[in-house]
Amino acid sequence: MEQNIRIVLVNTSHPGNIGSSARALKTMGLSKLYLVAPEQFPHAKATAMAAGADDVLANATVVPSLPEALADCQLVIGTSARERRLSWPLIYPRECAHKVVEQAAGQGEVALVFGQERAGLDNSALEQCHYHVTIPSSEEYSALNLAASVQVLCYEIRLAILAQASKAQAPSRGDPKATQAEVEQLYQHLFSTIENIGFFDPKNPGKVQSRLRRLFARAHLEKLEVNILRGILNAVDDKSR
Amino acid sequence: MEQNIRIVLVNTSHPGNIGSSARALKTMGLSKLYLVAPEQFPHAKATAMAAGADDVLANATVVPSLPEALADCQLVIGTSARERRLSWPLIYPRECAHKVVEQAAGQGEVALVFGQERAGLDNSALEQCHYHVTIPSSEEYSALNLAASVQVLCYEIRLAILAQASKAQAPSRGDPKATQAEVEQLYQHLFSTIENIGFFDPKNPGKVQSRLRRLFARAHLEKLEVNILRGILNAVDDKSR
Repeated sequence: MEQNIRIVLVNTSHPGNIGSSARALKTMGLSKLYLVAPEQFPHAKATAMAAGADDVLANATVVPSLPEALADCQLVIGTSARERRLSWPLIYPRECAHKVVEQAAGQGEVALVFGQERAGLDNSALEQCHYHVTIPSSEEYSALNLAASVQVLCYEIRLAILAQASKAQAPSRGDPKATQAEVEQLYQHLFSTIENIGFFDPKNPGKVQSRLRRLFARAHLEKLEVNILRGILNAVDDKSR
Repeated sequence: MEQNIRIVLVNTSHPGNIGSSARALKTMGLSKLYLVAPEQFPHAKATAMAAGADDVLANATVVPSLPEALADCQLVIGTSARERRLSWPLIYPRECAHKVVEQAAGQGEVALVFGQERAGLDNSALEQCHYHVTIPSSEEYSALNLAASVQVLCYEIRLAILAQASKAQAPSRGDPKATQAEVEQLYQHLFSTIENIGFFDPKNPGKVQSRLRRLFARAHLEKLEVNILRGILNAVDDKSR
């Protein structure tokens, strides 16, 4: 279960926050940390703040871009401040933890993604997520420290794992989910096809691509569904050639 | 409500942890911080780590001993590691938050007490508490950072306050949903189009229609999304004519 859950930190500025996050993971029984293009890593401050979680740090996977951290994942949840430009399915940490544990219990790979300290996740990153999760912070001051956010989310995940372990295993729901890479290939195929048939003009893109990503992210596509949709797109491609 | 809840830090060693704790309080809508004989305070590191919560720090009450921080309190809960020498009522953060909010809503003064970073609360402090609360951390590594513990407990208190006030509104779920009739028209259009392009054979239907219905039902389509999808289908129809 726990080994199917990864915490992904994107473009982290302060190495101390990477160390504190590693500690937060380990106290909650998690160990898989991915670092996407960290500004400074490895770093003495990261090691110091990790305290007894230096093994989590030593085993962290460092990758240059977010898609590489997510390619084999079947559920991706991104953290988001309340004020968002995108309208995307938005959940609270408790619901988030239930979704994470449900997927991870079925042996699916799950990623929980945290953005850069000040800026958070950008739109391109947020569009790679099935859900956005927000910690219900104060309207007056909502700036949780990065590692504090990691601690709260990992705490809820641990509670959900403990609850799940004390329950009989729920039957698995539905067929296997598509991976992020499969879904991204579907998007590229779809965007190319709607451009070819004249529905989409890349010189005047508007929000069509975002809206289609959001729709299919919400559906959380299964492998077979991706195959059906790509079959339809192939048939359209043949006709419009 | 919130002004009846105080967070008490006892003999804190690292001033940075005092600042991080102040930030944790403020993000969760709390503001009353008591410091019992801190080793170093005020301190530049405390101010730096408080970030935008410097007002919480500036208004903190510094007292020389724990009883002075608790004198007017009607409920006192102390944080405790799992391994305790005392047999005392032990609760988890969620139950703790409910007790805190129940008391604070009745205008009672409530204190949540955190011990020194390494040693925690000593027996004399623990005996001044009505309950002990423990965060269900990993058996392998349970050493949460002090400010991380403050964040988790304050997060649970905030959830309990929001629930109590019936303010816990679900996050907004985006734009208006399509009606059943609009979605059914979309299905009929989709089925007709995929038949015209040769992807679907009504003489040999299989489960494609059911699977497409199930996919889009799960997405719970919005009106605008139905319009985009029908726009794409119209473009396909034009091309395949």
